[in-house]
Amino acid sequence: MSSVLSIIAGLFLFSYVNGKDAGTDRMKEIAGAIQEGSRSFLKTEYLYLGVFVSAMAVALTVFLGPKIGATYVFGTICSGLAGLIGMEIAVKANVRTANAAKRGGLIGAFPIAFRGGAVMGLMVVGLALLGISIIYWITGDPETVLGMSIGASTLTLFMKAGGGIYTKTADIAADLVGKVELSIPEDDPRNPAVIADNVGDNVGDCAGSGADLFDSYVAAVMAAMILGGASQIAYQKTVPLVFSGLGIFSSIIGVAVVRVGKGDDPGKALNLGTYVTCIAFGALTLAATNLLGYDMKIWLATVAGLVAGIVIGMTSDYFTSINRSPAIKTAEAARTGAAINILTGFSYGLISVFPALLGIAIGSAVAFFLYGVYGVGMAAVGMLAIAGTIIAGDAYGPIGDNAKGIAEMAGLGEEVIDITDQIDAAGNTTKAITKGFAIGAAGLTALALLASYQEIVRVITGQTISFDLMNPLVMMGVFIGMAIPIIFSAMIILGVSKNADRMIEEIRRQFREIPGLMEGTTKPNYAACVNIATRGALRELLPLIVFTICTTLVVGFVTGIRALAGYLSGAIFSGFFLAILMANAGGLWDNAKKYVESGFLGGKGSDTHKAAVIGDTVGDPFKDTAGPSLNTLVTVISQIASLFAPLIITYALIGL
Amino acid sequence: MSSVLSIIAGLFLFSYVNGKDAGTDRMKEIAGAIQEGSRSFLKTEYLYLGVFVSAMAVALTVFLGPKIGATYVFGTICSGLAGLIGMEIAVKANVRTANAAKRGGLIGAFPIAFRGGAVMGLMVVGLALLGISIIYWITGDPETVLGMSIGASTLTLFMKAGGGIYTKTADIAADLVGKVELSIPEDDPRNPAVIADNVGDNVGDCAGSGADLFDSYVAAVMAAMILGGASQIAYQKTVPLVFSGLGIFSSIIGVAVVRVGKGDDPGKALNLGTYVTCIAFGALTLAATNLLGYDMKIWLATVAGLVAGIVIGMTSDYFTSINRSPAIKTAEAARTGAAINILTGFSYGLISVFPALLGIAIGSAVAFFLYGVYGVGMAAVGMLAIAGTIIAGDAYGPIGDNAKGIAEMAGLGEEVIDITDQIDAAGNTTKAITKGFAIGAAGLTALALLASYQEIVRVITGQTISFDLMNPLVMMGVFIGMAIPIIFSAMIILGVSKNADRMIEEIRRQFREIPGLMEGTTKPNYAACVNIATRGALRELLPLIVFTICTTLVVGFVTGIRALAGYLSGAIFSGFFLAILMANAGGLWDNAKKYVESGFLGGKGSDTHKAAVIGDTVGDPFKDTAGPSLNTLVTVISQIASLFAPLIITYALIGL
Repeated sequence: MSSVLSIIAGLFLFSYVNGKDAGTDRMKEIAGAIQEGSRSFLKTEYLYLGVFVSAMAVALTVFLGPKIGATYVFGTICSGLAGLIGMEIAVKANVRTANAAKRGGLIGAFPIAFRGGAVMGLMVVGLALLGISIIYWITGDPETVLGMSIGASTLTLFMKAGGGIYTKTADIAADLVGKVELSIPEDDPRNPAVIADNVGDNVGDCAGSGADLFDSYVAAVMAAMILGGASQIAYQKTVPLVFSGLGIFSSIIGVAVVRVGKGDDPGKALNLGTYVTCIAFGALTLAATNLLGYDMKIWLATVAGLVAGIVIGMTSDYFTSINRSPAIKTAEAARTGAAINILTGFSYGLISVFPALLGIAIGSAVAFFLYGVYGVGMAAVGMLAIAGTIIAGDAYGPIGDNAKGIAEMAGLGEEVIDITDQIDAAGNTTKAITKGFAIGAAGLTALALLASYQEIVRVITGQTISFDLMNPLVMMGVFIGMAIPIIFSAMIILGVSKNADRMIEEIRRQFREIPGLMEGTTKPNYAACVNIATRGALRELLPLIVFTICTTLVVGFVTGIRALAGYLSGAIFSGFFLAILMANAGGLWDNAKKYVESGFLGGKGSDTHKAAVIGDTVGDPFKDTAGPSLNTLVTVISQIASLFAPLIITYALIGL
Repeated sequence: MSSVLSIIAGLFLFSYVNGKDAGTDRMKEIAGAIQEGSRSFLKTEYLYLGVFVSAMAVALTVFLGPKIGATYVFGTICSGLAGLIGMEIAVKANVRTANAAKRGGLIGAFPIAFRGGAVMGLMVVGLALLGISIIYWITGDPETVLGMSIGASTLTLFMKAGGGIYTKTADIAADLVGKVELSIPEDDPRNPAVIADNVGDNVGDCAGSGADLFDSYVAAVMAAMILGGASQIAYQKTVPLVFSGLGIFSSIIGVAVVRVGKGDDPGKALNLGTYVTCIAFGALTLAATNLLGYDMKIWLATVAGLVAGIVIGMTSDYFTSINRSPAIKTAEAARTGAAINILTGFSYGLISVFPALLGIAIGSAVAFFLYGVYGVGMAAVGMLAIAGTIIAGDAYGPIGDNAKGIAEMAGLGEEVIDITDQIDAAGNTTKAITKGFAIGAAGLTALALLASYQEIVRVITGQTISFDLMNPLVMMGVFIGMAIPIIFSAMIILGVSKNADRMIEEIRRQFREIPGLMEGTTKPNYAACVNIATRGALRELLPLIVFTICTTLVVGFVTGIRALAGYLSGAIFSGFFLAILMANAGGLWDNAKKYVESGFLGGKGSDTHKAAVIGDTVGDPFKDTAGPSLNTLVTVISQIASLFAPLIITYALIGL
């Protein structure tokens, strides 16, 4: 029910944003180009996906029955829809934010940007919970939700990683040729890659992140339901649904309180929304626990997850914020050149993994001691319950970024650019928090999925299989599993480099061959760059995803159920580590560069700045391509393992 | 007995090298400065170590009895001696190699460089095996060897990590100011950091690597002996000693066959030595197995380890070699700037982890299925049995590097520099192989140590404790354990940056304040730079080592024996991953730069070269500081855990 309410609230906000004026013709033109580029990307992507999903659906139907095949397709549709809606609103909100900044200043512009993000947030959680509820009501079996969940996950992997390759291809290419070679400013309309760059913000950050949390959300609720199904206590299966519903209410409340008055800091307003959501969630679920007679320990486990999520988010915030020691020290290191800048940022990125590891370790251990593996599942649910507000803050980021781009391209003047800049800067911070949060949530979800894998194996075999590290199969599995996120990151970064190379050639070609481009008298061919980004991204990605799924199945069918458990654990270990490292180091280099740009250490154009730009460029695919895809990767393989567990138990070369 | 033979052979080669002419006065002067700098580093380091070792010895005696305290001190002395001898011969061999190159060309110079390395190799394995044998003969208890082993490990950590900080501080500072800012060539005598740079090659690469393999060697033999002690079959405890002894014979044979004729490639000669050693080892141990009636499966497990080691070494070779696709592609990426160069190298570094993980996974699984955990222990012994030849090849590297430096500084002319360059280049390849090999050996040793930890716990408690991944304490331990190598790498890299910063300031100051320095009419103050490198390295390192040991004990005493097992596993996971990544990515960037320098893609001085230099600088602390220290770190904490297991079982807050 709350899911329907959430969708209604989302639609209401959509019409609010849509009703605003989109500004001058020039602005509409630019926004139109971005919108067109985004749609063209999604169209191509959905085309690829159509083929992939059909193949998967057929395979799943053949091997695991039509119920799984159907729920799989349903999951992909829900997830695709969430991404589509989020992006549609984002490309509408960006130009309206820029226009409102021109007319009403920050007070006028901020609500549009934020409510645009909120549409995405509320739609995502609404659709997710609605989908789960429908399937559960029809089948009454949490394991069919697994089909939906895996549908959502594979789609997310495409959106997230494909969008990630897209956005960084464009970003790196635009920066390297534009800023470094030709010394024209960022977001300059003469740069042929500028539209692709702005499109990238939408498809990578906005649609991708929305799908990401959608996926973790569904997976966490499903895992908790499966784990709850193992117990005698009937209500355990439904608690995840009830708590998630209350999480949506809390998110609506949290979204509603976010507003800025005169002279207010938009960053603070966004944080307030998050805190209000957390408190509301704690209070509502406590009340529900008392009213419905749930075990108080379940509530405590849920809150443990929420707290762990906040800790991880705050860690990311500290390690990436522009006014904190890590970013400043990294910026200072740029004075002795790019190499030291990179080494320093990388080191702080490594250090930032520690509190996150500790948060997950303690959070899951506490949840386990409170209520066993079901407690771990509920901790993941608790962490993700506030996803509505988190996604809202996250989707707000690219809207602000785009608004700034439009303001610059349309020449709306210094004052307007300043306001959009303020909105953009606040977005960078929330993005860092969200990323940490999303990774933490995915980490906890992956642990819950591991437990639910064990539970599924237990149901089939009638015995609890131990995953002892001293068992050579488990240990071998861990080592091989560790390799998966490692190779995936590598290949996806190489994909960005390769694709960026192609686009750099294209930009240089245009500047060389189109007369009057540098002088601003002719327009560049934006579509060519958009095209390169789109096709290249999908071309790099598809074999990678097929490889990952196949490896998982090969490990399972050849080395058996124990090795596969080790394999999943290994993927969690290296995946979580790399995800945090890449997200935080990337954010850190970005803000170190911004620190220099804001006038310190020589400011823009100095050698220090040039060194910091190199660090930022290294960080780009870390934080926006590889890092954020790893969560989803781990979720996908965990679910593939659970899904195929019955077949593996029967047919594996090395049996129990 | 073979250990004594090995030491005699080592001393014989020492006198051979020492008997060669050290060249002109200018050469002697430069070599003297390097020798002095190296000695001054070791003196300061041994001073710090004296305090640290005394404190540890007292603590161990109080908590674990005088036997452990005494063997601990004995272990540190053996390891320290091995490092000292290796470095003494290295600083003698370098100048003699340069001089021989002047007189006799490659055929004259190569044997001196290689035999200098061989002294180190043979002394290290000889001392290691002699030490183990003495202790075992006296006490008859493999667990007292643990005291010696941990003594060797802590000392190694200092040598390896301290030397690593030292060498990269000097290298980065010398390159950044010299090559980049002032455009003077590498190894130019006007550069105040040039002596420190050459000293660094000795203390970091030579003494450090020798100590590293010494440490793994002792640990592997000890772990196999402990695991063998668990069995009814009496000979199992002595097989590791017998096989290691035969490994030393094989190394002596392998070292003896290495020579170059006219027009031969020194790299090939070095590889031949390795192959001959492997074959000799296989044949000798097979014969021993038949003669002494050992189980054939033990031999097979040993060979499995040896094969895994070779596979990992060859992987490193492929991923870092100058004429292979990864290095060439990384060099090509430098055309679009430093950022893409770094991203590409990093990605290939990530990919290179996969075969290494697979090698360890399959090698240890095969060994386990052949002969249980004892098989894993013997696999580690098998891998390390050829350490004599491996160390010889490794120590050869810095001798060649130094010889080249001396040839340049003493102005011996193009032809001589070319010959030393050839010797140096072959050294770079063997270094890459050795590093892969050393990491693989340490990884397998760490697994054996984990098994011996379980065995020690079993002996005390009378029950085999399972380390189930679904146990929340084990999982929590894994997450926290993973953080240790991560934080250690970060802090040590930051230490290099900080220290390099200090030295950069000093170099700039000297060029600014010493008149005539740039023109070459006055000499720089070399000692000042040597001093900064020495003190800084130890200042950064000491707290880090204390932190690591304390964390291990805290995890053990607070969360108990199971969590500690998870912790050790976690440290193995992230430690092995980071070690391989850093070693290979670093080597790759280095050779990508060398590829450009050899005239491709614009050659020296081009923008591509500048970008490649940045990549190389990032890789320097990766491959020479953080990466190679991680093995030892993992060995240290594994052994600390085993050593304190009895106390932890009795006093831990969370019991069995």
